[in-house]
Amino acid sequence: MTGDKRTARERAHDLVAQMTLAEKCAQMKYDAPAIPRLGVPAYNWWNEALHGVARSGAATVFPQAIGLAATFDVDGVKGTAAAISDEMRAKYNQYRTFGETQIYQGITAWSPNINIFRDPRWGRGHETYGEDPYLTGRMGTAFVQGLQGDDPVYRKVDATLKHYAVHSGPERLRHSFDAKVGEEDLFETYLWAFRYCIDHAGPSAVMGAYNRVNGEPACGSKTLLQDILYGVFGFQGYVVSDCGAICDINREHHVTENEAESAALAVNNGCALNCGDAYKWLKTAVALDLISEETITACVERLFEARFRLGMFDEDCPYNDLSDDVVECPEHLALSRKMAQESMVLLKNDGLLPLDRQLNVAVIGPNADDKSVLLGNYNGTPSQYTTLLRGIQEAAQGKVRYARGCHLTQDQVGRWEEHPLREAVLAAQKSDVVILCMGLNPQMEGEEGDAYNGDMSGDKATIDLPSSQQKLLEEVAKVGKPMVFVNVSGSCLNLCRADELCGAVLQVFYPGAEGGKALADLLYGEVCPSGRLPVTFYRSDRDLPPFTDYSMKDRTYKYFQGEPLYPFAHGLSYTSFALEDLRFEGGAVEGVLRNTGSRRGGHAIPVFLKDPGDRSVNCRLAGLTRLELDPGEAAPFRVELCREILDLFDDSAALTALVDGEEVQRRSAGKK
Amino acid sequence: MTGDKRTARERAHDLVAQMTLAEKCAQMKYDAPAIPRLGVPAYNWWNEALHGVARSGAATVFPQAIGLAATFDVDGVKGTAAAISDEMRAKYNQYRTFGETQIYQGITAWSPNINIFRDPRWGRGHETYGEDPYLTGRMGTAFVQGLQGDDPVYRKVDATLKHYAVHSGPERLRHSFDAKVGEEDLFETYLWAFRYCIDHAGPSAVMGAYNRVNGEPACGSKTLLQDILYGVFGFQGYVVSDCGAICDINREHHVTENEAESAALAVNNGCALNCGDAYKWLKTAVALDLISEETITACVERLFEARFRLGMFDEDCPYNDLSDDVVECPEHLALSRKMAQESMVLLKNDGLLPLDRQLNVAVIGPNADDKSVLLGNYNGTPSQYTTLLRGIQEAAQGKVRYARGCHLTQDQVGRWEEHPLREAVLAAQKSDVVILCMGLNPQMEGEEGDAYNGDMSGDKATIDLPSSQQKLLEEVAKVGKPMVFVNVSGSCLNLCRADELCGAVLQVFYPGAEGGKALADLLYGEVCPSGRLPVTFYRSDRDLPPFTDYSMKDRTYKYFQGEPLYPFAHGLSYTSFALEDLRFEGGAVEGVLRNTGSRRGGHAIPVFLKDPGDRSVNCRLAGLTRLELDPGEAAPFRVELCREILDLFDDSAALTALVDGEEVQRRSAGKK
Repeated sequence: MTGDKRTARERAHDLVAQMTLAEKCAQMKYDAPAIPRLGVPAYNWWNEALHGVARSGAATVFPQAIGLAATFDVDGVKGTAAAISDEMRAKYNQYRTFGETQIYQGITAWSPNINIFRDPRWGRGHETYGEDPYLTGRMGTAFVQGLQGDDPVYRKVDATLKHYAVHSGPERLRHSFDAKVGEEDLFETYLWAFRYCIDHAGPSAVMGAYNRVNGEPACGSKTLLQDILYGVFGFQGYVVSDCGAICDINREHHVTENEAESAALAVNNGCALNCGDAYKWLKTAVALDLISEETITACVERLFEARFRLGMFDEDCPYNDLSDDVVECPEHLALSRKMAQESMVLLKNDGLLPLDRQLNVAVIGPNADDKSVLLGNYNGTPSQYTTLLRGIQEAAQGKVRYARGCHLTQDQVGRWEEHPLREAVLAAQKSDVVILCMGLNPQMEGEEGDAYNGDMSGDKATIDLPSSQQKLLEEVAKVGKPMVFVNVSGSCLNLCRADELCGAVLQVFYPGAEGGKALADLLYGEVCPSGRLPVTFYRSDRDLPPFTDYSMKDRTYKYFQGEPLYPFAHGLSYTSFALEDLRFEGGAVEGVLRNTGSRRGGHAIPVFLKDPGDRSVNCRLAGLTRLELDPGEAAPFRVELCREILDLFDDSAALTALVDGEEVQRRSAGKK
Repeated sequence: MTGDKRTARERAHDLVAQMTLAEKCAQMKYDAPAIPRLGVPAYNWWNEALHGVARSGAATVFPQAIGLAATFDVDGVKGTAAAISDEMRAKYNQYRTFGETQIYQGITAWSPNINIFRDPRWGRGHETYGEDPYLTGRMGTAFVQGLQGDDPVYRKVDATLKHYAVHSGPERLRHSFDAKVGEEDLFETYLWAFRYCIDHAGPSAVMGAYNRVNGEPACGSKTLLQDILYGVFGFQGYVVSDCGAICDINREHHVTENEAESAALAVNNGCALNCGDAYKWLKTAVALDLISEETITACVERLFEARFRLGMFDEDCPYNDLSDDVVECPEHLALSRKMAQESMVLLKNDGLLPLDRQLNVAVIGPNADDKSVLLGNYNGTPSQYTTLLRGIQEAAQGKVRYARGCHLTQDQVGRWEEHPLREAVLAAQKSDVVILCMGLNPQMEGEEGDAYNGDMSGDKATIDLPSSQQKLLEEVAKVGKPMVFVNVSGSCLNLCRADELCGAVLQVFYPGAEGGKALADLLYGEVCPSGRLPVTFYRSDRDLPPFTDYSMKDRTYKYFQGEPLYPFAHGLSYTSFALEDLRFEGGAVEGVLRNTGSRRGGHAIPVFLKDPGDRSVNCRLAGLTRLELDPGEAAPFRVELCREILDLFDDSAALTALVDGEEVQRRSAGKK
């Protein structure tokens, strides 16, 4: 079909017109069969690209999504997604030589996850861009743009915004849970980033969530799909169900009587593609007049429009030339390392960091030499990777002593098991400085079914460090050596004791295959830390409302009434920056950023807006930029503030911008 | 007590004389408490040193015992054990600064395991030195000597021969199993290496097994302990029970009525130390007149003689100076790499190996990038390690493509799981040569409780490759590229299809932390393979008698009537060797070995004896030596044959020696 002058939509229409009802229904399942008489190969729609091509063998593994968000580097995230889609497309080009694709071999990525990480206990929170809708919207937009490419005709890879909507735990209840949410929270928090990404990036697809929202199952919700997504938001793409979510409508939510009714509810509200088995009943649903054939046809046209737009049927699609040489190529590995550097957040530093390479160091903790904490979840398999320990070993010039120190979670070591504490104390005694590598791993915070966190099904019962690690921290602290606390997790943990006992605290989100190298780059000052927290670090479980309460009251930096240990957007550097000539006029903040320290460093400038008269919200992130400056260098910057955020404030308000801690009043009251 | 002129035995006698009965009884448990009034610190006797200090944190991890046996390098094994005991002692010197030792912190090693690997299905077989009593005796002797050191006064570390006796599965039944064995098999196979090691190395300790032998529980067996070990063999050391084995006597074997009787049975037959809890009942047993206090005293004297001989109470013990700088020192890592090189056995080579570094290689298989297959069981935690994949990546100059290819064991991949086969086929298509890294891992063949091999509790139901891997082999073979089959396992597997389909087959026993480097050294010809099989590689499960049958009939190279795929002691090289001037006179074989090839290489010369008139046994290994020669170099060798093996042959027999495949008749019929 090379050289076809018709649009993808026209080609889809013409092709689908030749299909029987049965053929059309079959194409609405994620594992769509071939239609040989029409030249349609079998295609499995399910692929994953959260932070690298996932579950499809060797691939560059970038930092987990929460770490990408912590970079506050929109361009870097777009570049990351572009690298990922190159690898996915290259793999697809190879896999299709088998004449069809299997699962995780196609070019329709069910990424990114732009749910709001409203509660640190949610196991899948690290798949998201954090707690703020604007940051999520910016990162999601960059990621979608990077995945989908900028060819005027073809999409490189389809991006899918998920999980639509209001999805954030509990994992154990997700198939039957009804998230109850008010209109303000719905639009200002839970749906905000979906709309933003749709407006700014034109994603190919949206995935419906498992849960109900205010009584309606997300994958069959007239309100969410028909009224808001296709209506208010003007979404142009296709909707896919989460896997098994449509059978959940009758089996778990008990909103319908059987699978035919569930399928009809979903399809009639615009869910064109089914991951799972419910659409086996589509023909029955049509026969029962629950769905019209026209509705089926419209769905299948949407799906084939996407496949045509992906160039699946064309010889001259430019992405056909991508060879697997791009997979884990040096450029991608270097980008992964750079993003990992930017993703780590220096939370405290009394001057201990950076370290001198000559120091003898004790690397202690259950996460020091664990490959899994590099990878997060929804990950690929790196052919090479550098654990935190190995990164330090490769960079250090003094002696490196390693001691695991404790079991990751088990406090009581079995009588006949290894007792690793004493080795850790000895290692600390003999070293100049201790680097504690602690925290969680992706088995402790994950997805229902993936994770083995006891009754919590992937969620966490607490934000406290496991007691085994608390004990290790206390015992090693008694040795009296300077300590760096490296916390590896995908979420906020209670780091109060680490903050008290350690000279430096560094947050490492699951950092990808190059994580150990990036950590060493920061510890030894090769690179300045520049990451910022995309989530609030609370002091205790007592700071958290009930997990199942979806009200945003007292959640995230916007609404939390307490004092966090480390606030949203917090992040230190080894150099220092000053803002000069700060101005807030109309819809933008401008100024000059100067590197007043002695090292080159990256620096994000998040701009928050607040209305001192409005007690309902502390402030709102409304713009951000990021610069990298040499010592002494100064550069002007301009942050365009987000129109949709500005719109949330009363036009007459005495609007104030918080720019890196400095307050600046808006000069002209005009909103636009 | 520095400068004490008394012998260790005298000091033990004098110290124990000051103890109460209760104090003495408590000292017979492995977790012996302190006796502050006598200056005796608490001491935990349990430590492990199978192929490196185990379960005690960072340590050099050498090849698993079965791999050490495959080196056929007696001096190398002694050097390995010396390195291990240096590390153990150095760690002890640190741990004792806490005023006591915990488990895995002492200097009494419950190693080596010199059981006979009579059946490849036994899960713990890889802890042993293989199927041959003589090879086991030589390796065990070297290992004990290396552990115990050669100080005239002090032992560096106590070695413990285990498991005495006739212990080799099934793991699931080990606490209640009664191994029924005839006298010839008992003495010529199961006990032979124990006696040999006792005669030649003077081990400090022997550990009793879990099982019964001909009805008697091993840890309480008059026949095994009193009559044979202390009587016939003249053993001078102490006996320790396997962990929980004494409670098994009443609870599982039902030979006694209660723990007091079990403890009495064990102590009265010479088992001085109890791993487990049975000796809590010792005071009761004495009160019931089941044991005399004199017997208790004699046991405790043996134990304290050992502790004095280890220098635990002396300031001037030369081993006190060993600092933890020896742990994972460069010399030990180099030795581990060298032993790993020697432990790998080239089973087939049609000229494919060694590889040119410029070739593009596909490294395929579930064992390619698995740390656990480096480590085996009873292992330490290496601070650095090189997986097979990484070793190849570091050595190759062409492109290395990695594909896992399949799950280690699961044939049916879940519908929503990764489907890794196609990636492997693609990698093969694009490469010049395929290196398949297949086999088992230490979770699939291990100990009861350790392993998760379903119903088999660590044993294997079959010697076939898992069907997932069989399928991968067949599919990759269809690509038609030259293939090297790297089989990682601790035991014989059925490699018939690998032998048919692949140009080269290399057996890699769990090779230790440097395993990947050693593999690359061999694959790329940096070093010639020189390992030899310490076990017969059978063709099929049909070659094996029932697992629970302890008769040696039709087992091992000595008695097997069939045709193995690769026989015991088989092992190829990249160079070639010729034997010249071969003579067999009296008790020795002499000759000249010439390296007739073009590469330096090591070469073991095992000497088997056979009596053509004796149909009951095929042949018996009776001597061995090992040389390393440059190309063209020749060196004389002399192999002293083992007196105890010669004694097994009829004096008048027409004795023939098989030397590396060449037969030579004994010139003088005199046996001695």
